[in-house]
Amino acid sequence: MAQELYFEDFYIGQKFTSIGGAKVTAEEIKEFGQKYDPQPFHLDEAAGEGSFFKGLAASGWLTAAIVMRLRVQTIQVAGGMIGAGVEELRWIQPVRPGDTLRIESEVLGIRHSQNRPEFGVVRTRTMTYNQRDEPVMRGVVNFLAPLKPKR
Amino acid sequence: MAQELYFEDFYIGQKFTSIGGAKVTAEEIKEFGQKYDPQPFHLDEAAGEGSFFKGLAASGWLTAAIVMRLRVQTIQVAGGMIGAGVEELRWIQPVRPGDTLRIESEVLGIRHSQNRPEFGVVRTRTMTYNQRDEPVMRGVVNFLAPLKPKR
Repeated sequence: MAQELYFEDFYIGQKFTSIGGAKVTAEEIKEFGQKYDPQPFHLDEAAGEGSFFKGLAASGWLTAAIVMRLRVQTIQVAGGMIGAGVEELRWIQPVRPGDTLRIESEVLGIRHSQNRPEFGVVRTRTMTYNQRDEPVMRGVVNFLAPLKPKR
Repeated sequence: MAQELYFEDFYIGQKFTSIGGAKVTAEEIKEFGQKYDPQPFHLDEAAGEGSFFKGLAASGWLTAAIVMRLRVQTIQVAGGMIGAGVEELRWIQPVRPGDTLRIESEVLGIRHSQNRPEFGVVRTRTMTYNQRDEPVMRGVVNFLAPLKPKR
């Protein structure tokens, strides 16, 4: 397990790469679709064929959820990764059954929190790639990181 | 079932309000947490107590997923709601077990798609409220809407 990171441990240009990948199955796509994004192209191969996606595709929110798991595994913030807002999320191409996703995150900015003096805000851009190294999602997300406890 | 909407049906200032609400249970929070956001405050009441959230709280990505379901139910786009990117997502306060969420969406902008001449892009701001009418999430999301077929 990697060391837990405090605000002082982050710097602009710092990079994090997921270890291993997340394989996305048709079953997971359909289960998530039924619960959270019940549209034909997220539920059924045949129904997807006649749609914008020309087949079964993962909900963009499933991709975002899988990326959150990869981020939590990859960037271990002391006390947990607390989201402080998304600035951008772009779905570049569909995620299909059998795709394996991996991420590369880069720190774009760091600043002290105005509301919470015991925290800083880390601004990151995360690129998500499939097994062909094609980008499938780009996101810019801020999270909180606690300042190191004073001794 | 509401009428399916084409690009020409949308206008700036148009509002959509979810019918009914989405109740969030501790079971759903923990299940989503285990799959996509495995951090103590999304998995276990006792572990959450000592955390930033002071208790069990829904992953922000679970809230976003529930809101997608409410949006799909509320705004019925012809051919389905295809995300064209998120411009902002802010989690304003935690979603707790037993909360019931509802949404209010407003159209902020409409434009023709540059890449896809058969589609327009609808820019919407969606506010999510809990059962006490407190805002829990604010989002600005673009989606595609098809132009009406020419006769």
